[in-house]
Amino acid sequence: MLLRMSTLLLKTLREEPADAEVPSHRLLLRAGFIRRAAPGGYTWLPLGKLVLDRVTDVVREEMAAAGGQEVSFPALLPREPYETTGRWTEYGDDIFTLQDRRGADHLLAPTHEEMFALLVQDLTSSYRDFPLLLFQVQTKFRDEARPRGGLLRGREFLMKDAYSFDLSEAGLTEAYGRMRLAYQRIFERLGLTHTIVSAVSGAMGGSASEEFLAAAEVGEDTFVGCTACDYAANTEAVVTPAPAGLPAAAPDLEVHDTPDTPTIASLVEFANARALGGRTDWTAADTLKNVVVTVHHPGGKDELLAIGVPGDREVDLKRLNAVLAPATATLFDDFESRPDLVKGYIGPQGIKIRYRADPRVAPGTAWLTGANEPGRHATNVVAGRDFTPDDTIEAADVRAGDPCPSCGSGALTIRRGIEIGHIFQLGRRYTDAFAVDVLGADGKPVRPTMGCYGIGVSRAVAAIAEQHHDERGLIWPASVAPADVHIVAAGRDGQVEAALQLGATLARAGVRVLVDDRPNVSAGVKFTDAELIGIPRSVVVGRRLAEGYAELRDRRDGTRQELPLVDIAGVITTEVG
Amino acid sequence: MLLRMSTLLLKTLREEPADAEVPSHRLLLRAGFIRRAAPGGYTWLPLGKLVLDRVTDVVREEMAAAGGQEVSFPALLPREPYETTGRWTEYGDDIFTLQDRRGADHLLAPTHEEMFALLVQDLTSSYRDFPLLLFQVQTKFRDEARPRGGLLRGREFLMKDAYSFDLSEAGLTEAYGRMRLAYQRIFERLGLTHTIVSAVSGAMGGSASEEFLAAAEVGEDTFVGCTACDYAANTEAVVTPAPAGLPAAAPDLEVHDTPDTPTIASLVEFANARALGGRTDWTAADTLKNVVVTVHHPGGKDELLAIGVPGDREVDLKRLNAVLAPATATLFDDFESRPDLVKGYIGPQGIKIRYRADPRVAPGTAWLTGANEPGRHATNVVAGRDFTPDDTIEAADVRAGDPCPSCGSGALTIRRGIEIGHIFQLGRRYTDAFAVDVLGADGKPVRPTMGCYGIGVSRAVAAIAEQHHDERGLIWPASVAPADVHIVAAGRDGQVEAALQLGATLARAGVRVLVDDRPNVSAGVKFTDAELIGIPRSVVVGRRLAEGYAELRDRRDGTRQELPLVDIAGVITTEVG
Repeated sequence: MLLRMSTLLLKTLREEPADAEVPSHRLLLRAGFIRRAAPGGYTWLPLGKLVLDRVTDVVREEMAAAGGQEVSFPALLPREPYETTGRWTEYGDDIFTLQDRRGADHLLAPTHEEMFALLVQDLTSSYRDFPLLLFQVQTKFRDEARPRGGLLRGREFLMKDAYSFDLSEAGLTEAYGRMRLAYQRIFERLGLTHTIVSAVSGAMGGSASEEFLAAAEVGEDTFVGCTACDYAANTEAVVTPAPAGLPAAAPDLEVHDTPDTPTIASLVEFANARALGGRTDWTAADTLKNVVVTVHHPGGKDELLAIGVPGDREVDLKRLNAVLAPATATLFDDFESRPDLVKGYIGPQGIKIRYRADPRVAPGTAWLTGANEPGRHATNVVAGRDFTPDDTIEAADVRAGDPCPSCGSGALTIRRGIEIGHIFQLGRRYTDAFAVDVLGADGKPVRPTMGCYGIGVSRAVAAIAEQHHDERGLIWPASVAPADVHIVAAGRDGQVEAALQLGATLARAGVRVLVDDRPNVSAGVKFTDAELIGIPRSVVVGRRLAEGYAELRDRRDGTRQELPLVDIAGVITTEVG
Repeated sequence: MLLRMSTLLLKTLREEPADAEVPSHRLLLRAGFIRRAAPGGYTWLPLGKLVLDRVTDVVREEMAAAGGQEVSFPALLPREPYETTGRWTEYGDDIFTLQDRRGADHLLAPTHEEMFALLVQDLTSSYRDFPLLLFQVQTKFRDEARPRGGLLRGREFLMKDAYSFDLSEAGLTEAYGRMRLAYQRIFERLGLTHTIVSAVSGAMGGSASEEFLAAAEVGEDTFVGCTACDYAANTEAVVTPAPAGLPAAAPDLEVHDTPDTPTIASLVEFANARALGGRTDWTAADTLKNVVVTVHHPGGKDELLAIGVPGDREVDLKRLNAVLAPATATLFDDFESRPDLVKGYIGPQGIKIRYRADPRVAPGTAWLTGANEPGRHATNVVAGRDFTPDDTIEAADVRAGDPCPSCGSGALTIRRGIEIGHIFQLGRRYTDAFAVDVLGADGKPVRPTMGCYGIGVSRAVAAIAEQHHDERGLIWPASVAPADVHIVAAGRDGQVEAALQLGATLARAGVRVLVDDRPNVSAGVKFTDAELIGIPRSVVVGRRLAEGYAELRDRRDGTRQELPLVDIAGVITTEVG
């Protein structure tokens, strides 16, 4: 491959693009890899397309090496299969739907579990046809409420989705493990530093779902690690340890006038100033905050839910929604319609709506909380005595320093990451929905169990850019760079011809070459562009061409070496080969 | 590549699929290359995906060799650019449209002229940035009224669309010529016998648009050739030669009672029986048939149009719609609402709606036609004397034997084909719409002129299957076969192991190998499947394995040769290398 910048569709930008907040988005725009074409939709320009193809090739190779067979489904699908599994309704506004000219409902499929299950039902009949591992690399569509970060969260993106079909739990576990290894290899080849985090709470079954998060400041996912053990989990998956041991018995509930204390801070101040219950050491953690949300169930039904968390914590809507999924929650604020819910003074005792509490609100614990009357609070409100939550709920925010739920001795640290992969032991939800059965070895029907495994291919390009750049531009890992070498003709006196000749020689040896042969561009601009574009190796053909020398540069560490042209060709072919 | 049929997702079908009418559709389903997933939407199974990828690779290679740069646009696009060019309305029901969660209109783009024009506007500024040739390989969507033939006409399909941008007519002509050659090379490499036909009438500018039609009985496109010259054209593009010389002057128009003659046949019979105008040699060609259609303009406006054609011809709606595009026509049948249009007895003399006539209805020609009264016709109705058409129109059907419009001496022949490519000198329609200007060499603004060039990639797979099959199955050209060799282990006594070993040896040498190592399948079924799947070479490892022999088969000519295994490996690596 020999690309010439004199003819390449490329316009690098000196200024920061106005609407790009994250480094990968800014740099991919500035270096001419992508261009915005629609809300949350990007055009891949020639250099970007080369990177995307290389990333895709790595994913494909590792999927094939793991025994995957590639297929390709339509993206536009009829409603029925998704209706059968309930996802048509569950996805709600998050998917694009349309009607064809005959008025039949269709969707642009966000993932293809239904279709893969139906395909396997169609094409298999016996235990001999299993195990199966199928994958596709496909453009996906999601009607994101807030597309952001360029390729990080778009409405149209490239995804690899794979599905395993096994006849036993052991088979599924094996397939899951094989894919987990394949994912580690893929992200290693892509140069992506990542952490594998548990994506479901321990209560739901440990390793049944894990996310691969590329460490990045701009990541949307927060995840926790432990200072003492190897625990790592998505924030949504963190389980709050219940307090150890039973608390001492508390005196009877007592109601106090607490005028003008609608917030936790004002309440704590008041309680200490008036020595409520004889104490002056009240903290927010001693109070019980009760937050009312409206839970929206797919299909339209709404219900009110009150959530009790220690007053030093916030309700984390992301964690809450993970618990409630497929339902979603929004904060309730129509208190006028519900006089029984006294804003700022709600207590769980006698509450008339569904009430779920943080695990820290364990039986026997006593709290300072609202008295359900304006300007009044109650002390010694004891869980299990004065009120009984309908259930516990993992909705309080997770903080650095919280105790580790795995080892119990370490403290949690919090980091941010970009979700680049997700593997999931699905089980039989979809094969049950379509009654997918095959003949078992014993002559009886057996129902396959599924795993599903996704990689955001276009998002991975952005994640690589996040992890591999400096203030001057991108620094692509050699495995995915748009070219192996960027040859810059610094001047015009035969240097363009020499650069093209070196490029042709290298291209014949299988090296991907980009030559900056632009006739009307200064050497300084060419160097700046080369650093912005970020091909790991560059060769500057400049004044010392007369002596047969050129300069070999390393984009990563900035080193420069003057070498005879023949040696440079040797170094590069050796590196690439 | 080494694929094993024991684990491959493949189920061949013995029976003819019920809903498949054309050979390629039937065979691609039966051989396990594709599977229906939606109306007009197909899933590529592993063997099919391999063929699709190879076809795509050929297209990509030739596009790159022709100087094309690959980009990739979103498929889901906002309404605005398509509104600007009028295509949002023109496409009407033929495109899929949807609204996002905010109610904004989007479409699934059927082609991307608008977006390429806008991209070039965005990324170029000077004549130095031209010429440009850009392409993408992308999934396209069209809301086909009648999807048919499997991959031949689907609602979701893979397409390569390319766009050239030049600053002069000469540049566009050069780019067009270069793409024409690239297309010829592509279809030759794909093994597709094809004809290049003119796709617009000569009146519009000769070579400005050509279609590549793969000869096939099942093709939807009819095209004409000439028995005497190399003229070839899409039926829609055939121009009717006007009659030579002026006809003799005709007597005055005469009206006759012609009861119960609402059809041409009944009229001719009546005219000869009663010797109307003193003649008994009336034929349908002497009569003038006037057909009323409703022309639907994009945006909703309808108008009536009467079309006059010689009575021995039919109005060909496909030709008519090609003339009227972007408007479309349907037959008018609400004669009760228009008493001035007397069904069966319409004549052009004094007609109150727009009237266009076939070029054979030349000035001075005299016709037997309706008298605009029930049960009456007129003779000696002379064009230019008794009526004057608003315009001529190419709407009459084209027939084998019609005179060639190019050489005039030959006769037309009619064949059917599948449109696999279309190249088009677009001009400035889209750059005008967006006022795309760049700085010319003379310092003045210059507006690029565009060409567009499409290949139906998935349709090409079907076209190849149409041209390369026999009654036993598919016969892939070596350039696109899912594998280079199909090794069949005929029995179980070490033959599976030997087949796999041969396969591994060949795969290491770069040969794409499919091994039929299925343990519970008879040799007969394996041979039948091998013929159905249609890999050009197969090797049968059977009883003579003990002597070190296997059988080399050629799918195309059916020849079989017993050879030592080592020689077979040599033959195949030589062929593939």
